Amino acid sequence: MSSWRNPLRDERDKRLPRIAGPCGLVIFGVTGDLSRKKLMPAIYDLANRGLLPPGFALTGFARRDWANEDFGEVVHQAVKDHARTPYRPEVWNQLSEGIRFVQGTFDDDNAFDNLAKTVRELDEQRGTGGNHAFYLSIPPSAFPVVTKQLARAGLAEQDAEQWRRVVIEKPFGHDLKSAKELNNVVNDVFPEDSVFRIDHYLGKETVQNILALRFANQMFEPIWNANYVDHVQITMAEDIGLGGRAGYYDGIGAARDVIQNHLLQLMALTAMEEPVSFHPRALRAEKIKVLSAARVPTPYDETCARGQYVGGWQGGQKVPGLLEEGGFAKDSKTETYAAITLEINTRRWAGVPFYLRHGKRLGRKVTEIAVVFKRAPHLPFDSTATEELGQNALVIRVQPDEGVTMRFGSKVPGNAMEVRDVTMDFGYGHAFTESSPEAYERLILDVLLGEPSLFPMNEEVELSWEILDPVLYNWAKQGMPESYAPGSWGPPSADQMLTRTGRHWRRP
Amino acid sequence: MSSWRNPLRDERDKRLPRIAGPCGLVIFGVTGDLSRKKLMPAIYDLANRGLLPPGFALTGFARRDWANEDFGEVVHQAVKDHARTPYRPEVWNQLSEGIRFVQGTFDDDNAFDNLAKTVRELDEQRGTGGNHAFYLSIPPSAFPVVTKQLARAGLAEQDAEQWRRVVIEKPFGHDLKSAKELNNVVNDVFPEDSVFRIDHYLGKETVQNILALRFANQMFEPIWNANYVDHVQITMAEDIGLGGRAGYYDGIGAARDVIQNHLLQLMALTAMEEPVSFHPRALRAEKIKVLSAARVPTPYDETCARGQYVGGWQGGQKVPGLLEEGGFAKDSKTETYAAITLEINTRRWAGVPFYLRHGKRLGRKVTEIAVVFKRAPHLPFDSTATEELGQNALVIRVQPDEGVTMRFGSKVPGNAMEVRDVTMDFGYGHAFTESSPEAYERLILDVLLGEPSLFPMNEEVELSWEILDPVLYNWAKQGMPESYAPGSWGPPSADQMLTRTGRHWRRP
Repeated sequence: MSSWRNPLRDERDKRLPRIAGPCGLVIFGVTGDLSRKKLMPAIYDLANRGLLPPGFALTGFARRDWANEDFGEVVHQAVKDHARTPYRPEVWNQLSEGIRFVQGTFDDDNAFDNLAKTVRELDEQRGTGGNHAFYLSIPPSAFPVVTKQLARAGLAEQDAEQWRRVVIEKPFGHDLKSAKELNNVVNDVFPEDSVFRIDHYLGKETVQNILALRFANQMFEPIWNANYVDHVQITMAEDIGLGGRAGYYDGIGAARDVIQNHLLQLMALTAMEEPVSFHPRALRAEKIKVLSAARVPTPYDETCARGQYVGGWQGGQKVPGLLEEGGFAKDSKTETYAAITLEINTRRWAGVPFYLRHGKRLGRKVTEIAVVFKRAPHLPFDSTATEELGQNALVIRVQPDEGVTMRFGSKVPGNAMEVRDVTMDFGYGHAFTESSPEAYERLILDVLLGEPSLFPMNEEVELSWEILDPVLYNWAKQGMPESYAPGSWGPPSADQMLTRTGRHWRRP
Repeated sequence: MSSWRNPLRDERDKRLPRIAGPCGLVIFGVTGDLSRKKLMPAIYDLANRGLLPPGFALTGFARRDWANEDFGEVVHQAVKDHARTPYRPEVWNQLSEGIRFVQGTFDDDNAFDNLAKTVRELDEQRGTGGNHAFYLSIPPSAFPVVTKQLARAGLAEQDAEQWRRVVIEKPFGHDLKSAKELNNVVNDVFPEDSVFRIDHYLGKETVQNILALRFANQMFEPIWNANYVDHVQITMAEDIGLGGRAGYYDGIGAARDVIQNHLLQLMALTAMEEPVSFHPRALRAEKIKVLSAARVPTPYDETCARGQYVGGWQGGQKVPGLLEEGGFAKDSKTETYAAITLEINTRRWAGVPFYLRHGKRLGRKVTEIAVVFKRAPHLPFDSTATEELGQNALVIRVQPDEGVTMRFGSKVPGNAMEVRDVTMDFGYGHAFTESSPEAYERLILDVLLGEPSLFPMNEEVELSWEILDPVLYNWAKQGMPESYAPGSWGPPSADQMLTRTGRHWRRP
């Protein structure tokens, strides 16, 4: 064996859990839903699993007139309501000792000076060592002022001794231009390797399992290319509507909300070449290669589809259409369903369409990646024996009921040689006794560890907008989206998009 | 589409059950176990499923002093004891009207003249149309006299109007020379396309499913070759001993009894190229190609293993060793365990060993084909992340619990990228509501339909002996086989046979 060590290879023992070193987390937007339902419980669960440093500090920043204790009580309640691991008073007590609150608005220099003081005190009282992450659970419009305040108050300063990181949530802009502006705002203060863009989908076990499936095995990679794959379908369907979300959603729509980030990232993991290692640099390089090779073919009216749900009945309940949901403009053109065709111009994928779709108020809540294989080039069977035979498929179920399903043809019992599709299944929940960490747990820990693999970087975000922009511009020139009934699988144009090429959407 | 029709393609609608035309079946050896437990019940089950012609005739030939009614009662009892489908008096009554018995010995010309007379009468009374199959459920030593008698009495005469077929059971000889002699004896009277050699393993659904799996799908064939497959293991293990079977088994042994026929046929189906169609001629041509390319590499003492079980405890019971079983010679060298390595010198398989093993009194009753894949050529994972990762495998479970299992690596839930083997399963019993016909049902119907696909032809039998003969000669020169404990997985030499190449037997 050579003694050469691959610089992109990380030689730690991956079976041992990694524990974050001394650090603290500051959350902006602690009064929001995400903070209460996901972030605070995830922090407790990490503490409960022993993955946080003993002196970990959690600081909230908001306009409310709270003392540390008031904020502590809010966190306590959030933990009791939403934590996934059992409540243990000794864990909570240790965690609560590091809880602080700073009151203020984003334009208030004093408040940020107070925050800087609080952080310095924590370094002394709790040994956080100058290492702090800032979680911006706030609208992107507030990013410029907050990042500038952080810089002004000296909170973004890092060196060999201490790190500072910033965590931001989607939307990462609403088109390429705004995404670049946003990236510039953030990168002005934080270097790119200190920016963690959270896409909680990438924290899901089944998403990371795409990489394990493809690259830990010998069986799948040889057929993972245009020679054998007919097309790929990536679906994220929700059965709920947009009641109460108008403020965020109106004018944004399904393509910007989900396809630009979650689905293009799933596509990148499904289609990318094998990285040299899972070192963040190596992994991102491969995702960037795929994204830069992907484009939506024209004419967009044939390769894409959009829809808006109307009122009707779903699951025995009368539900409103988007235009009747509170807060949406009465003539809102916002699409609640979007589907696009992608071609990936690489040797591996040329000629294989990737179909991405997302919609609200569809038949079922499901996220899956279906790799649909070509038919065998020759069947030695009689034609009547294979009439009920479909195409082979490998389906990665991201949620719910996480796992993998393979569909293939098998002989039907009986005296004749007749072949019919059957499925073979692997269920994550049944196969492992280990419990899956919640996506936010995984991702927050990664932020504290400085592991950026699962966070899309600025270039990925911009490439994703480059792919989507022409489609969005085309839609913007047009009238209302096609309508579709609640509980259906989207508008007729979405079906035509596939039937035009002799294919059809899966009904998951 | 061209109007050219492939002569090797059978254009019948394979979804419709085929029903045998007018015919009769004559069984020699009706007092034997096989006849009572398998053949008679299978005939009733076929009748019950409506797959036999209404005037079907069943004639028994034996030494007993029975009238038609006595034999009818024997069949009746066998049906009641062993049939798989419900007993329906109207089916039985119709079947029983066609039951005849002819008394005699094999060297008794009169008896065969009587048989010829009976057959002619059946043609008149039951409309069997001159179509008759002769099932020789008798020792091979009696084949010459019986086939000659059939010829002498005019029972083997066929023409465009009527067919005559002969069915024979293994052993098809005990080496190449005797197999050729046996084939000559049979082919002297019956042309090869009228000879049906029953290997009941080939009648099993899961065996035929090998062909469906491989050739109806796009996913498996691309990796079904030496580029991706490390080796193949074909196992037929039994947990019972040989008590009561000395007369048949002593001097024969595991290799002749099972490897020569069942396992080499399973190997041929697993390894063969895709046939142009499943026309018997096309299918057999491919099996013959594989068998002619297969050989056991030398030195045989390293590439093969044999063993004989000794007495001991199995499943909480004290069981005798082979030498203590009644009827076996006290110094019998007969092996009850045999394993061989095969190399197949084709472009597809060069360098991929096929390991075949069979034994009595092993840990469990199981028959399976395991295709074990090479490890991925490169793993982007850290070495510690894949320590628990084995080789991918596709396992076809022939019996019991018929189905297919795939073993592959999947991410272990948790914050680290750790990969561990999981399995994905398809169970025949769960996937289909159709019930599997019993192997003998399927095969007897095929005889009556004149469908020879699932019956090995003379050339296949001879090629199988050509493969096995050198191993048998090598063993014959040696002393006692190695001993192994009941309930174990064979002698140490069998394990060494694989560990020598860095591999190991599966523990099914």
